[in-house]
Amino acid sequence: MAGKTSAVLGRILNLNFKQISKELERFISNYVSKNSANGVVVGLSGGLDSSVIVKLSVNALGPEKVFGVIMPGRATPKEDVDHAIGLARDLQIEHAIIDLGPVVQKYSEVLPEGDKKAIGNITARIRMSILYYYAGLKGYLVAGTGDKSEYYIGYFTKYGDGGTDIMPIADLYKTQVKELARYLGVPPEIVAKKSSPRLWDKHLAEDEIGMDYETVDSILHLMIDKKMKPKSVAGKLDIPLTSVLHIRDMIAKSAHKRRMAEIAHVKK
Amino acid sequence: MAGKTSAVLGRILNLNFKQISKELERFISNYVSKNSANGVVVGLSGGLDSSVIVKLSVNALGPEKVFGVIMPGRATPKEDVDHAIGLARDLQIEHAIIDLGPVVQKYSEVLPEGDKKAIGNITARIRMSILYYYAGLKGYLVAGTGDKSEYYIGYFTKYGDGGTDIMPIADLYKTQVKELARYLGVPPEIVAKKSSPRLWDKHLAEDEIGMDYETVDSILHLMIDKKMKPKSVAGKLDIPLTSVLHIRDMIAKSAHKRRMAEIAHVKK
Repeated sequence: MAGKTSAVLGRILNLNFKQISKELERFISNYVSKNSANGVVVGLSGGLDSSVIVKLSVNALGPEKVFGVIMPGRATPKEDVDHAIGLARDLQIEHAIIDLGPVVQKYSEVLPEGDKKAIGNITARIRMSILYYYAGLKGYLVAGTGDKSEYYIGYFTKYGDGGTDIMPIADLYKTQVKELARYLGVPPEIVAKKSSPRLWDKHLAEDEIGMDYETVDSILHLMIDKKMKPKSVAGKLDIPLTSVLHIRDMIAKSAHKRRMAEIAHVKK
Repeated sequence: MAGKTSAVLGRILNLNFKQISKELERFISNYVSKNSANGVVVGLSGGLDSSVIVKLSVNALGPEKVFGVIMPGRATPKEDVDHAIGLARDLQIEHAIIDLGPVVQKYSEVLPEGDKKAIGNITARIRMSILYYYAGLKGYLVAGTGDKSEYYIGYFTKYGDGGTDIMPIADLYKTQVKELARYLGVPPEIVAKKSSPRLWDKHLAEDEIGMDYETVDSILHLMIDKKMKPKSVAGKLDIPLTSVLHIRDMIAKSAHKRRMAEIAHVKK
């Protein structure tokens, strides 16, 4: 945690998680019934966000209406798969385990060589395609697992993990989701893990972003919810202005990911 | 063409296609430069919409900034591939041909059996993933090929062909795009073909929708642009009310495809 983030962080974590979980469960069940869907599909990574989503979904709909898909790729540690399977079993939900290795390999054979980021994005989009495949077969919706921190800094693949029907925790910062996970009884070994999209080996979110989520969330809260200017944010948190500007740039550069594709409107 | 659609159709086709093409070319070049992109990637199917998009893109950016990807699947007729290759050569754009057969096959091996629609949607999403792969490698944007008819009746795969950065012709109905294609000099054999997403054998858009595009577009124009009620639309076009209600239902059921995923907002 950098500078004086702890006071701001204390404020954003001081929430009634019991009430919030009830609200989110109501959101899930309302949206499913409004759209005459039979349930939801969730991609289970063994990480924090997807564990929270599957917990909320089971609370909202019952285990028989939640389907989990575990899709390890080349950069997925065995531990994550174990955590995901353990959670699916605990919750008694139907689930499938699909090794993405051979599918990614097939793409590599037909495409020119790409860097780890290109392969990572392909992997995220394959996951989306498979979640929708199951959703189509079962008449389910795809529940997205993105949180508010990832959403605003654009830390997701457009039409990959960003391609979903509902986003139940996209209004909660990563640090808030962590507290919600504790409240919901997500296994502590999942809550304790460092956040990672696992799109390549040793891929850690906080390394890639360049700061820890406590700092990211404090900056986002002051800029987005409190509408403070970068200089004031840096001052209040006692952190370098460059850190705040880095986050501001990430927000700006990812704006297109939070919008529909731009339509050309013609005069007629 | 059903009932008295010809008068309405005459009105929607009475456009200045020279001016419209200039506007759309400006839209493409403005969006590309505003986003500091190096060019656009277009999926070339050999069909009407993608041929218009690639023509507009070349006019807007020059052939050296347009990359075409031809991705035949199991249901793609050889004729379509020939048309797409021919157009890419005529326009002197760099292009790649990728046979999706083995990729789709690999998905089939790891997924439970699905119907033709499920496989069709997977195919559309593989195409999106590959377009973005090239876009990522080259620093290009993905230009979508959806038109206004398909957009409103939801005749596209969410996060498949619907997953793009810009939609240059999404404000033009299919019949208008056909006229624009003629103006732009798209080869007549492409303009003459029956519209089809080619997601399965003998897949024709008008069969699946249940009426021809002249009728669809007349209904859409009166309902969307003129905000007329279904009964008045049926009366004006002298067609069965059930046809109008069918289109109205398609619009309503596909609303989620024209919106971002629904975010749960919590009281804090």
